[in-house]
Amino acid sequence: MAARRRIELSRERPLRRSRAGAPHGGTVVAIGGHEDRVGDKHILRAVADRLGHGGKLVVCTVATEEPHELWEEYESAFRSLDVPHVYRLDIESREDASSERAMRVLEGATGVFFTGGDQLKITSQIGDTPTYARIREIFEQGGVVAGTSAGASVMSETMLVTNNSEASDRISALLMAPGLGFASDMLIDQHFSERGRMARLIGAISQNPRVLGVGIDEDTALILEHERCFRVLGAGGVFVVDASKTTRTSICEEKAERMLSTFGIAVHMLTQGDRFDLPSRTPSSHSSESMERYETAVKRGATGD
Amino acid sequence: MAARRRIELSRERPLRRSRAGAPHGGTVVAIGGHEDRVGDKHILRAVADRLGHGGKLVVCTVATEEPHELWEEYESAFRSLDVPHVYRLDIESREDASSERAMRVLEGATGVFFTGGDQLKITSQIGDTPTYARIREIFEQGGVVAGTSAGASVMSETMLVTNNSEASDRISALLMAPGLGFASDMLIDQHFSERGRMARLIGAISQNPRVLGVGIDEDTALILEHERCFRVLGAGGVFVVDASKTTRTSICEEKAERMLSTFGIAVHMLTQGDRFDLPSRTPSSHSSESMERYETAVKRGATGD
Repeated sequence: MAARRRIELSRERPLRRSRAGAPHGGTVVAIGGHEDRVGDKHILRAVADRLGHGGKLVVCTVATEEPHELWEEYESAFRSLDVPHVYRLDIESREDASSERAMRVLEGATGVFFTGGDQLKITSQIGDTPTYARIREIFEQGGVVAGTSAGASVMSETMLVTNNSEASDRISALLMAPGLGFASDMLIDQHFSERGRMARLIGAISQNPRVLGVGIDEDTALILEHERCFRVLGAGGVFVVDASKTTRTSICEEKAERMLSTFGIAVHMLTQGDRFDLPSRTPSSHSSESMERYETAVKRGATGD
Repeated sequence: MAARRRIELSRERPLRRSRAGAPHGGTVVAIGGHEDRVGDKHILRAVADRLGHGGKLVVCTVATEEPHELWEEYESAFRSLDVPHVYRLDIESREDASSERAMRVLEGATGVFFTGGDQLKITSQIGDTPTYARIREIFEQGGVVAGTSAGASVMSETMLVTNNSEASDRISALLMAPGLGFASDMLIDQHFSERGRMARLIGAISQNPRVLGVGIDEDTALILEHERCFRVLGAGGVFVVDASKTTRTSICEEKAERMLSTFGIAVHMLTQGDRFDLPSRTPSSHSSESMERYETAVKRGATGD
């Protein structure tokens, strides 16, 4: 193939996994943290409504230092949303993640929910264990993998790791690690507007614009279906940060303690109802009410997806 | 002129005041808040070095609730930077701003520095008073107009007003008011990354993309010369947010309590040394050290500008 044609083809169809042909996989629900758990629970309701008739949800508290408290909150929330089977999977070691107990808890599950906490606890404890393999299987069979805060970060291929230093937007403070990879070609950040994380997200994707940056506000979620398109649900915004047209970045030049300079980033600010097509990296606008109608259809099992 | 040609011309030379021919006006130094006042004082030093030989700086404490404390801090900082004449202008009423005392304080000044506080106190007390006219005159004669935090916001034509509600990124919470207008065609926001203000800045400029959004991090400044080009100085970033290529915004559709959705915003993340040309809205990359050399040249009066 002629060199020029190769370049044209790459522009027309960038090599992104999400461009792959037939729809496959289940649903990712990534939540920016602090979702409503006692009122309307619109986001947890979206998780519940995707579990199928007689669904079974496993709440995985591995990330948190307060597993008992969080489990009680989520158990109460999901039971009030009429999820027939809600189980707890607490993992404190890789041994737990490889145990028969874990396999029994995950047996028959149609959804897994990761609480907030420390994303490295999730990946270091369950990465490459039977628990991870089983969750992947649930996902590939059309199940739901959901998570909030740290639980949303781990959906990424490569994830941002919380850095408690004040200078979290310096290059040296940009800590990343392999995520669970349920959201292909994406790097998801959470508590996004609330914690002012635009600079660190731009810094992360500048290191490799193949990956799309997605920043989710609190009480807001993206719902990604078949790894192709996500929809926004909730009170805040979802920021899509695309470095593919970036004209310059100082990532390899500047001293590590400095901030990055990057020019020509495309940013889309999406709110409830809006959709984003991953293969073409194109947002489309839909009303907030359209999302409520869609969710009602999901509940009735009538989305046709 | 043919319609098509008119459109082409408008694309080639958008109608921005900053495109105007000959350089004029003085220097704006807009600081994102919390600039170093006791150590190296690199940003206050940049103000001091632009006052000229035997310069006189007037520190205007109108914005703050703690005028005495701030005055003492800034007096000490600027005296340590060898500014020969540092005066205080405290204004508590429009009468003060129209007083002979204020005129005497501003007599012979080559620079004015606005402290942080409440931007509405600055504009409501001095707007359209002899104090404002005199500061404008100082600026047009080539002087320096500087400000930090609220003092940076007022440099804008139209400024964002602090809203203490948690939902500051909702359309209804986007409060704006006329600023002092020293930075043409710009809307300056401060404490930018630290307070997570990207959504509100995008919200503001989506209402009129004629104005360029500029978000300044703490201990970071933009130095705007002749209303045409600014340079970045300091530890953090300056985010330029350009809505001119925005493909869609929900500003007129959504209910006021919702967040905005806006697609196709261009964002440039600039750090020390980087420059931004306002007429063409184009960033250019320069090393951090180049800015240190430039500042040394300014101090020696050898920039050739």
